[in-house]
This record gives sequence, C-alpha cells and structure tokens, in this order.
Amino acid sequence: MTASDRDDGRFSYEGLDRVIHERARLSVLTSLVAHPKGLPFPDLKRLCGLTDGNLSRHLAVLSEADFVTLQKGFAQNRPQTVCRLTASGRQRFIGYLGVLEQVVRDAAEAAESGPESGRRGLDPATKPA
Amino acid sequence: MTASDRDDGRFSYEGLDRVIHERARLSVLTSLVAHPKGLPFPDLKRLCGLTDGNLSRHLAVLSEADFVTLQKGFAQNRPQTVCRLTASGRQRFIGYLGVLEQVVRDAAEAAESGPESGRRGLDPATKPA
Repeated sequence: MTASDRDDGRFSYEGLDRVIHERARLSVLTSLVAHPKGLPFPDLKRLCGLTDGNLSRHLAVLSEADFVTLQKGFAQNRPQTVCRLTASGRQRFIGYLGVLEQVVRDAAEAAESGPESGRRGLDPATKPA
Repeated sequence: MTASDRDDGRFSYEGLDRVIHERARLSVLTSLVAHPKGLPFPDLKRLCGLTDGNLSRHLAVLSEADFVTLQKGFAQNRPQTVCRLTASGRQRFIGYLGVLEQVVRDAAEAAESGPESGRRGLDPATKPA
C-alpha cells in the first residue's frame, strides 16, 4: 500500500447512503432532479425503465425517507400522481453525488496507473460488449 | 419533459451491474484497482472499513462472478490470502465506471439548472453535516 491510502477506511465511501445508492432509486432521483416541477408517475416510469410495481415500491422507500413527495390529483379527468424531489432530498442527493464523483476519481486514477492501461480517462470503448 | 429525455429508459442505467454496484463491493474493487499486485486480506479489510465476515462474504460474491482471485499462501510463516482483480474484472469495472460517470454528469447538469442552485458543479460545501 502507498502512504496516501494507509488510512483506515480510505475506500469505504460511508457517504453512499443505501437508500439512494440502489440502482432503481438512483434512476428515480436523477430523473426527478432533472425535473424540478415534478413528473407524473407514467413519465417517471418510462424514464427509469421500471414496471408499475417496482416504481411504486421504490417511491414508497424514498417517500418514507423524505426524499420525495407524491401528490395525487387529476389530469384530463384521470387520476394522476405527481412525484417531486423534496428540498432535503435534493440536498442529500447532491451530497451523495459528491461521494460518487470521488469514487469515479479514485478508481479512474488507479485504473490509469495500472499496468494494462496506456490511455487517459474512462474510454467508453473499453465497455464490455 | 424535454425532447432530449423523452426516450424510454433515459435514466435507467442498465450498465450499473448489481454485483459491482453494492457499496462494500465497490469499495473492494476500487481498492484492488488501485493495487494491481493484489492486497492481503487484512489490508483490504482496513481500506474498506469492513469486518472479516463482511469482507469474506463480498469476496465470495466477487470471486464467483470472476472479478477477483483469492490466493492462499504464507507470509512470515503465517497463512495469508492475497486478493487480486482479474483482467476481466478490471475491464468490467472500468465499463461500470463509465456508467457511473454518466450518472454524475446527468445529475450534476440537472442539479445546476435547478431553481435553487446558482453555482457550478457539486460543491462539497453542500454536503449534509
């Protein structure tokens, strides 16, 4: 190990809140941060590529933890739920993104200095097919 | 929604492989990509801030999916397991990091254009205390 990473928990990333980090919930939060006025359930479902049941389940978790509000109403005489990020949810999500940036930076630096890598950055061409 | 994100699954991030994405395993993989020659179990445990049992469990998952190899040997007459990233594991982890970069980019762009934000980038000062 190098001197710089001898610290306990150097790569533990405690800030990766499990409520946010789950893939589907990360999709939901990214969709909602991109739409500050909120999104109707069907639009959110489509952006996240989730089923009704899955999206409902994850929204319940996010609502319980005060990340989102779910407002029931009507649009064109049909019932509609609009999902919005709360101010606190937005703040915590931005904190989480800072940790995620750190993960990418740590790993990219390490990968670049590895023996098999001759290039800079995370070239999309290296993605598995 | 804007024209650019009308696509189905725009924010679904299918590339976030669940084997990699789990927080503890993300710690393990980042630690190992930073140490191409491998790490003894106790060093890896310390860097990731994990217990013996937790690290063993996650290494079993990663080994099963051919991300890591676990080599048992001796150091100073004591048994020692050295953990290393496989070439395929390294490649898949780099692909995953590309998707993670995309998440950060998508969310940072969205957060910057939000109504409450007057600054650029993910300022660490916005992290919750």
